[in-house]
Amino acid sequence: MPKLSQRGVEIPPSPIRKLVPFAEEAKKRGRIIYHLNIGQPDIATPEIALNAIHTLDKNVLEYSHSAGYESYRRKLAEGYCTIGIEVNHQQIIVTTGGSEAILFTLMATMNPGDEVIIPEPFYANYNGFAVAAGVKIVPVTSGIERSFALPPIAEFEKLITPATKAILICNPNNPTGYLYSRNELEQLRQIVLKHDLYLFADEVYREFCYDGEIHHSVLQLQGIDDRTVMFDSTSKRFSMCGIRVGAIVTRNTDIIASTLKFAQARLSPPGLGQIAAEAAMDTPPEYFETVRNDYIARRDYLVEALNTIPGVVCPKPKGAFYTTVRLPVNDTEKFAKWMLTDFEYRNQTVMMAPAAGFYATPGLGKNEVRIAYVLKLDDLKRAVECLKIALGTYPNL
Amino acid sequence: MPKLSQRGVEIPPSPIRKLVPFAEEAKKRGRIIYHLNIGQPDIATPEIALNAIHTLDKNVLEYSHSAGYESYRRKLAEGYCTIGIEVNHQQIIVTTGGSEAILFTLMATMNPGDEVIIPEPFYANYNGFAVAAGVKIVPVTSGIERSFALPPIAEFEKLITPATKAILICNPNNPTGYLYSRNELEQLRQIVLKHDLYLFADEVYREFCYDGEIHHSVLQLQGIDDRTVMFDSTSKRFSMCGIRVGAIVTRNTDIIASTLKFAQARLSPPGLGQIAAEAAMDTPPEYFETVRNDYIARRDYLVEALNTIPGVVCPKPKGAFYTTVRLPVNDTEKFAKWMLTDFEYRNQTVMMAPAAGFYATPGLGKNEVRIAYVLKLDDLKRAVECLKIALGTYPNL
Repeated sequence: MPKLSQRGVEIPPSPIRKLVPFAEEAKKRGRIIYHLNIGQPDIATPEIALNAIHTLDKNVLEYSHSAGYESYRRKLAEGYCTIGIEVNHQQIIVTTGGSEAILFTLMATMNPGDEVIIPEPFYANYNGFAVAAGVKIVPVTSGIERSFALPPIAEFEKLITPATKAILICNPNNPTGYLYSRNELEQLRQIVLKHDLYLFADEVYREFCYDGEIHHSVLQLQGIDDRTVMFDSTSKRFSMCGIRVGAIVTRNTDIIASTLKFAQARLSPPGLGQIAAEAAMDTPPEYFETVRNDYIARRDYLVEALNTIPGVVCPKPKGAFYTTVRLPVNDTEKFAKWMLTDFEYRNQTVMMAPAAGFYATPGLGKNEVRIAYVLKLDDLKRAVECLKIALGTYPNL
Repeated sequence: MPKLSQRGVEIPPSPIRKLVPFAEEAKKRGRIIYHLNIGQPDIATPEIALNAIHTLDKNVLEYSHSAGYESYRRKLAEGYCTIGIEVNHQQIIVTTGGSEAILFTLMATMNPGDEVIIPEPFYANYNGFAVAAGVKIVPVTSGIERSFALPPIAEFEKLITPATKAILICNPNNPTGYLYSRNELEQLRQIVLKHDLYLFADEVYREFCYDGEIHHSVLQLQGIDDRTVMFDSTSKRFSMCGIRVGAIVTRNTDIIASTLKFAQARLSPPGLGQIAAEAAMDTPPEYFETVRNDYIARRDYLVEALNTIPGVVCPKPKGAFYTTVRLPVNDTEKFAKWMLTDFEYRNQTVMMAPAAGFYATPGLGKNEVRIAYVLKLDDLKRAVECLKIALGTYPNL
């Protein structure tokens, strides 16, 4: 039989999936597992979006435009304008989730072998897209000591080579919850200008900003319209991860033209999802307020409770619904597995994502985990209680 | 500004899209255009699928499994078994349309620079997937003289190099409508065994077989389970192109494992589409009978009518809903454009896909067009009338 390609092998195993078989085993033993490991919110999808699906008035579920329904793109553009991101519908390509937005942009802007600098820890699936596009991720480390702030610009500059083509940030950040400041974005603006690079930003958690902080988009930076691409998604915003509707947003017409060719090859983004997404644009502001307040309550409880556990360090994130936490163990992968295989407290346990998988530099993040606060407060309390007891009894091999 | 990648440039322009601006202009002038250029059927989506959407009982539109909902995969496997393709749900990865099935399989099995042999003319979007995967399409020409039958095996063997990794067929074929015989598939079986290759088959038109002919799947070939991958899609089968739900089906567990890694990176295939697709599996057989009879009536009329036009050669396809037709003009790209810009008959005209874009070999197909018989019989009649008059008056520059 012919050999498989190298590419499949090159995609590193997901930080979470290795644990899934142990979680399934635990479930079979009747264990209650609190899932702090994934970004699947328990928040209800806006009713207005579900209604659009229930009342769908079509006889043929036909292809949409390859760039997405124009009506949806116009509505998206309007939405961006109201939050101070001035774009029109021709500066938007609707994609199959944020995932495809990233893949198409890498494909259209970077040649195989080109390098993209990404602050680590970073969303682990960037690895898959980089492998698919044949581009190299060069990590620049942001540490828990500085609460995962943007690494100093000098650290970026050390990594820039003739192959460097872009910097990619996730803002607010998955897996750290860090929200980049205006000043940090300004520093990135300077560096991409100085070194002739693109600046890509994954802004899918934009609505999840806390403590009165304001989100700054890379599309609001002055004088680098040709360099900035924003990746967006409806997944987290409207708690409809499954519809797979995202977007590429850029004022660079060449990038629009080139990503459109990849979009045309795959014909169209999901039509039903776009209908839900377009309807969701009219979600009343109270929905977001309620959701935001829920997350703030969860975060406030979580961060405070975790920091009272001896040896645990948890920065207070200002965005998204993740936090990357240091635990007093040598290897969180072993600990997370142990919690599923050997630990229980009142028949309950917790599943977390070991953070090493979010770092590209070998050896980093081994005593950190990513915790997603996507559970109701009561469950979160029980989960923290479990974690506290587990840390007290873990042999820490 | 940094340069774009070469990849975007390498994707050849679609055979159809170049004409779109002229069609839009013609529409603005009030022209009625019969669209024989695209594979968007006018057939209604099965009611059972639409009902599943209307009665959707979910509060959160959550991610599905990366390989697709297990219930859907089980139902798909059952469906394959009833048509003599023995597979189980673990041999299926649900994808975002057939498009993603092809892309993931190329990524997982072929390294950049590897070669895949494809009979030309072929579905033009294979070019986009090949560019994305960095693999080279090597065309083997199937001519209108032999009604687009499989080229002799000797022609394949001439093209095999150390870089050849796979053969890809589309069966029934887009753009020719050709249905490969059992014997032709057997020949392909021999050659992939002899030369240690994969055999990929795009079988998305499987249900559209006419004249009592039976479809043979590559998954029914004996002794090459490790080499065969079938690409499937719900788009044409249930006339729901827009839901973007396809599948990779293979008994090769390594290919399943590797394509699953790409699937995991993009999280999940569209959830709403999968719900429609799963429901559609219970579409009553009468639906397909009606659809098939519709297409047979359209094809029979079309082929006969076209062949009465002087200089036109139209083989009688046994599958899908396309036919690739020779016209008595020097350059169908110019002719197709002229029909949109300069021609009208009772304010009507026709849009067709110039066939050169379906060939990889430069210069081939210049006097051929692909015609999709996706219109109602009455419209088809008016379209053929237009075409006949156009050919009679075209200056043939």
